[in-house]
Amino acid sequence: MKEISKLMGYRASIKVLDATLRDGGLVNDFRFSDDFVRALYLSNIRAGVDYMEFGYKGDKSMFDVEKFGPCKFCDDDYIRRIVGENNTDLKIAVMADVGRCDYKNDIHDRSDSPIDLVRVATYLHQIPTAVSMIEDAKSKGYEVSCNIMAISNARESDLQAALDILGQSPVDALYIVDSFGSLYPEQIARMVNIYKEFAEKYDKKLGIHAHNNQQLAFANTIEAVGDGVDWLDATYAGMGRGAGNCAMELLLGFLKNPKYNVYPAIQFIEEQMPAVREAGAVWGYDFQYMMTGLLNQHPRTAIEFTKQNRTDYSEFYKEILAQE
Amino acid sequence: MKEISKLMGYRASIKVLDATLRDGGLVNDFRFSDDFVRALYLSNIRAGVDYMEFGYKGDKSMFDVEKFGPCKFCDDDYIRRIVGENNTDLKIAVMADVGRCDYKNDIHDRSDSPIDLVRVATYLHQIPTAVSMIEDAKSKGYEVSCNIMAISNARESDLQAALDILGQSPVDALYIVDSFGSLYPEQIARMVNIYKEFAEKYDKKLGIHAHNNQQLAFANTIEAVGDGVDWLDATYAGMGRGAGNCAMELLLGFLKNPKYNVYPAIQFIEEQMPAVREAGAVWGYDFQYMMTGLLNQHPRTAIEFTKQNRTDYSEFYKEILAQE
Repeated sequence: MKEISKLMGYRASIKVLDATLRDGGLVNDFRFSDDFVRALYLSNIRAGVDYMEFGYKGDKSMFDVEKFGPCKFCDDDYIRRIVGENNTDLKIAVMADVGRCDYKNDIHDRSDSPIDLVRVATYLHQIPTAVSMIEDAKSKGYEVSCNIMAISNARESDLQAALDILGQSPVDALYIVDSFGSLYPEQIARMVNIYKEFAEKYDKKLGIHAHNNQQLAFANTIEAVGDGVDWLDATYAGMGRGAGNCAMELLLGFLKNPKYNVYPAIQFIEEQMPAVREAGAVWGYDFQYMMTGLLNQHPRTAIEFTKQNRTDYSEFYKEILAQE
Repeated sequence: MKEISKLMGYRASIKVLDATLRDGGLVNDFRFSDDFVRALYLSNIRAGVDYMEFGYKGDKSMFDVEKFGPCKFCDDDYIRRIVGENNTDLKIAVMADVGRCDYKNDIHDRSDSPIDLVRVATYLHQIPTAVSMIEDAKSKGYEVSCNIMAISNARESDLQAALDILGQSPVDALYIVDSFGSLYPEQIARMVNIYKEFAEKYDKKLGIHAHNNQQLAFANTIEAVGDGVDWLDATYAGMGRGAGNCAMELLLGFLKNPKYNVYPAIQFIEEQMPAVREAGAVWGYDFQYMMTGLLNQHPRTAIEFTKQNRTDYSEFYKEILAQE
């Protein structure tokens, strides 16, 4: 059981990262208006959020700039249009996907960029490329984290081997990512134990990025907080792929550090989120996502089910069972 | 940390109680059609659910039978109309609220009734009446549980005194009830510790009834399972007052006892729940419920906010802060 004094007090090393534009962008092709992004930026500053992820550094030779909003690419000029010189305590983050980012060319020296943190996202079988990207970003002056995706169906020995390699890289933080929203809090606690061994050995921070397929994104995040994880991803109104993420408003309400403030998040949601939903973005807990989470499957079938406006949940369950 | 063998195996003493008609009835004035109730009964049997709560034993001198559906009163004849002699493994439960139930007259001998379990619901200041109701139901041959409501703002010493009194009563199970949806899993773990002391001393079972104001109803329920709580309340699609309850489909997916089966629950939700929503019933996580949960307040203000179709969340937050 967690110490009650730790529940009543707070840990200054905790950092909150707003991933609304990045994970949320997956449900609206990153088509956020400048007004929305600016309001989000101001809300994050007022709420005491530590990092704001603007989106992906997508490779323009792979992704058509006509088909996505600017947060798919996160050009330095685009970010500057929103944040100017960003003379605030809020740091700017971007995600760089292994295999989908021309990192050598598209990530410039930090001294020339408004970006502070590069988040390298990798699957277990891509670790050497992830290390190359980490080294590249670090040499350019950035803080760097690494998100190992889809760990819920990885063998522990593979995960340990990956963490040992990443531990020897110059990465600052290692992220536990429950891509399928399939992990229960007890499993998060075990996962943290595995990560912690390497975090302590190599002096790295730990982070968590959760999905809400089983209504556990917030629960898994605060489980991880209690286990010593410091970097916490959340999105406003839980906006994110499929069932969405840990809701920023829940997380800010939970955290005890007086620098965090839930009220700006509530205001932002009230003022900005209805238009996003009206424009057609769909996310949040629903039965189809519960089922892929339960079966520890990628949510792509549930996303397709949602797009087709299907409601034959029992038929869907039989379909995805057949894919087991 | 919970033992991994316990996560992989199962505890045969766990019981699942379907509270859809009772807690869900609070959002539609208990107006469930016989077809709905019969389908729910059959679904519970197929899903391996242990108890089905039909509703309240409401006092007809207090509540107008014209203004509520039959599940507000749970006459024996009404239940029999649905379940016949109920020659199944599914037991029938009703809730008897302290001060709102003419228990001496309206609860008949078990030998004359289709009911198996009487659930006495009480606030801390009503314990002597609760004990009288427990003794009455026990003397009539029922299994009896006691739900102590609104414990999240109770002093621990008061709660301990109540548990010591209830422990000496013939009650079978003591329920942890997070009426306001304000407790975090760590607090549930501490609450279980308090209850456990008296459960062990007096040989009682423990139960949990959670609310989803902070998206923690399922998380708190499985936290309690891991801590040794055996009787678990859930409702289909989480239907219940305000933010609703622990979702049956999540709970059945989590439990490992082969007698439980999530598929009938999915079928029931698909076939029966859309009509209930179309008839006007509103429940589930929303920001106003998050806020009352966060502030450990009764959800009545959030329910009123919902009824008025208000969406000025930040104004609402200021209103309920002013009531602190």
